[in-house]
Amino acid sequence: MSVLAAGGFEAFGLASGIKESGAPDLALVATADRTPVSAAGVFTTNLATAAPVLVSRAHLADGRAAAVIVNSGNANAATGEQGTRNAQRMCELSARELGCEPTDVLVCSTGLIGIPLPMAPIESSIGRLAAGLATDPGAATAAATAMLTTDTVKKESVATADIGGSLTLTVGGMAKGAAMLQPAMATMLAVLTTDVAVDPRALRVALQRAVGESFNQLTVDGCTSTNDTVLVLASGALGNPPIGFGGRGYHALTDALTAVCGDLAEQMGRDAEGATKFARITVVGARTVDDARRAARGVANSQLVQCSLNGQDPYWGRILSELGASGAFIDPLQVDIAYGGITVCRDGIAAEHDDRALAAVMAAHDIDIRCDLRVGQSEASVITTDLSYAYIDENAKTS
Amino acid sequence: MSVLAAGGFEAFGLASGIKESGAPDLALVATADRTPVSAAGVFTTNLATAAPVLVSRAHLADGRAAAVIVNSGNANAATGEQGTRNAQRMCELSARELGCEPTDVLVCSTGLIGIPLPMAPIESSIGRLAAGLATDPGAATAAATAMLTTDTVKKESVATADIGGSLTLTVGGMAKGAAMLQPAMATMLAVLTTDVAVDPRALRVALQRAVGESFNQLTVDGCTSTNDTVLVLASGALGNPPIGFGGRGYHALTDALTAVCGDLAEQMGRDAEGATKFARITVVGARTVDDARRAARGVANSQLVQCSLNGQDPYWGRILSELGASGAFIDPLQVDIAYGGITVCRDGIAAEHDDRALAAVMAAHDIDIRCDLRVGQSEASVITTDLSYAYIDENAKTS
Repeated sequence: MSVLAAGGFEAFGLASGIKESGAPDLALVATADRTPVSAAGVFTTNLATAAPVLVSRAHLADGRAAAVIVNSGNANAATGEQGTRNAQRMCELSARELGCEPTDVLVCSTGLIGIPLPMAPIESSIGRLAAGLATDPGAATAAATAMLTTDTVKKESVATADIGGSLTLTVGGMAKGAAMLQPAMATMLAVLTTDVAVDPRALRVALQRAVGESFNQLTVDGCTSTNDTVLVLASGALGNPPIGFGGRGYHALTDALTAVCGDLAEQMGRDAEGATKFARITVVGARTVDDARRAARGVANSQLVQCSLNGQDPYWGRILSELGASGAFIDPLQVDIAYGGITVCRDGIAAEHDDRALAAVMAAHDIDIRCDLRVGQSEASVITTDLSYAYIDENAKTS
Repeated sequence: MSVLAAGGFEAFGLASGIKESGAPDLALVATADRTPVSAAGVFTTNLATAAPVLVSRAHLADGRAAAVIVNSGNANAATGEQGTRNAQRMCELSARELGCEPTDVLVCSTGLIGIPLPMAPIESSIGRLAAGLATDPGAATAAATAMLTTDTVKKESVATADIGGSLTLTVGGMAKGAAMLQPAMATMLAVLTTDVAVDPRALRVALQRAVGESFNQLTVDGCTSTNDTVLVLASGALGNPPIGFGGRGYHALTDALTAVCGDLAEQMGRDAEGATKFARITVVGARTVDDARRAARGVANSQLVQCSLNGQDPYWGRILSELGASGAFIDPLQVDIAYGGITVCRDGIAAEHDDRALAAVMAAHDIDIRCDLRVGQSEASVITTDLSYAYIDENAKTS
């Protein structure tokens, strides 16, 4: 059910013809009664911001939205002022069908950069898209499928949390992409829904925290796309007293958002095209959380570490070097490094270990790498993949 | 002649047995009279600093050195306190043969990380190495060859500059590596010599400038190794009045150092293993030089851009995205991007161009990419390569 797991929403998706392949490429999520509700977004920090990001940011200024329209197959990025007009037009077309204001509609696009968005397929399909809005599982699947590009599977997740007063909130979500893993198609997008009533500012901070603990801890190639967007709409269908900052409801909402975002991020990592390994880099004992994140990200983003994962080679010297170059404080004579619980480096030098057990760890699809800096108490974890021939194949050509 | 092009030095190299392959692995450069002269170094910023870097830094505290000993085949990095003792021992052994102080000897190592440096081959070969010191071209070649790891060719360069008073200075140098391109073998090293008399502090600043304009503008994978080192010794054999800060001599020296370092950096880029492309990313019109460098480096380090070069795909949307994510200030509606002089993006959107001419540009081995941010007057240039199957092969296994 994913994006429809939380009450108060409808969804649908179809093939409009943006994609030459004829695959589904247009999705719509709306409140059941078409009225705007509390909404929040987290957007790419890339200065070459895509048009839909600019438009969605503006439409979220009041913290409210009634719908999200998503297209795949074209990122509507590097498309200039016409691109912005096209993104606005997508909102207008949706609003006309839904009977809401254009500024209550958010828009996401994903696909190739630098190619004008073809509007004709959208203009001719929007009526059918809105007419298809429904609450059944098939409708949720249609929406989750229509946002995909080079993904091999759709990505959905649901979490619940007790907020007291015998009430249980639900957060559901759908996503596409794996950071910039599918760069020719760019972008990661996620659309989340929840049934709680919540102050828009509290929703925004909760979403930022959830994204910081999930999508921002996933890295495949260190790239930040022009279109990255995570949106959440809160219907209020649960009938709870509105959640503000702090308190049981706020924490429950943050936890549920984090759980859904974390699950979607892991699904993205696992769908990383061409990847033969799924690795979790955990740095503990850092002086600060920033240091821990910087160190974990430095290791995870390293082409050299990714190559060694591809080759199942436990070359910890490369990891130590990346920790040292990451900008985080380390004392090289204190660092411990372990693959799958087998310590290969202790006090910054080679540690005796069971080579056969280590080979078994490296041969597995999932590999845990743990680095203990032993200079503090902070920790962070980042998900990444290996670097493979298939990654090059995927990204050497846009078509 | 390279490292012996400037008067006042001798060199030699041989196979000591550090490398199991039996390839040359030990090189020595010394002043002709074994007395210390002005010397300077630029070292890695990696906090997991290799032992030879720690020792060389300490030995350069007085701005003087009489010799440089270099081994390949083992980086003596992540080797703890024993590693430091071994690096010091290399200096002691050299000093004993040369008749100078151990603190007048600098040491460089390159090769695998995390494996104790085998000292027996060095102990047993040092006498033969010192006895072989000579000024003939064969001796220079022996030294340049013995510092190589996975390099396919030795890297040497010479530059001269007029310093007035009918005097012409000479800078020569030898190098190995391509940043972290050969990561299993780690490191870039360069040893330079010059015949001028120069104040050590002026020499140090001149070297820093030269490195900033050359090696620091080369990037293959964004990695900073544990061992990166550039050293220069100035014999004074030219008989010039000592060069201080500023003036014709200082600028001539800086220019010649920059020319040699730039040439060596380009040779490293061209020897990048597995690379099928050699690309120069030039960013102009940036607000500051820092912005220009950040933007050029962001594009050059991008796995996605490197993959598109490998596929000969002029996907400029990716370049625009990397410019936007680089941290440099850009206005996406003002950016122009050209491959080999063919503008494919103007004002941040697709520009009409000759597809056949563009295909010819992308098919060439050398590709120039020029990005005009049009928000200022600053520029910078960075050298990189494509990302290929062979890069993965080279780095998936350490042996």
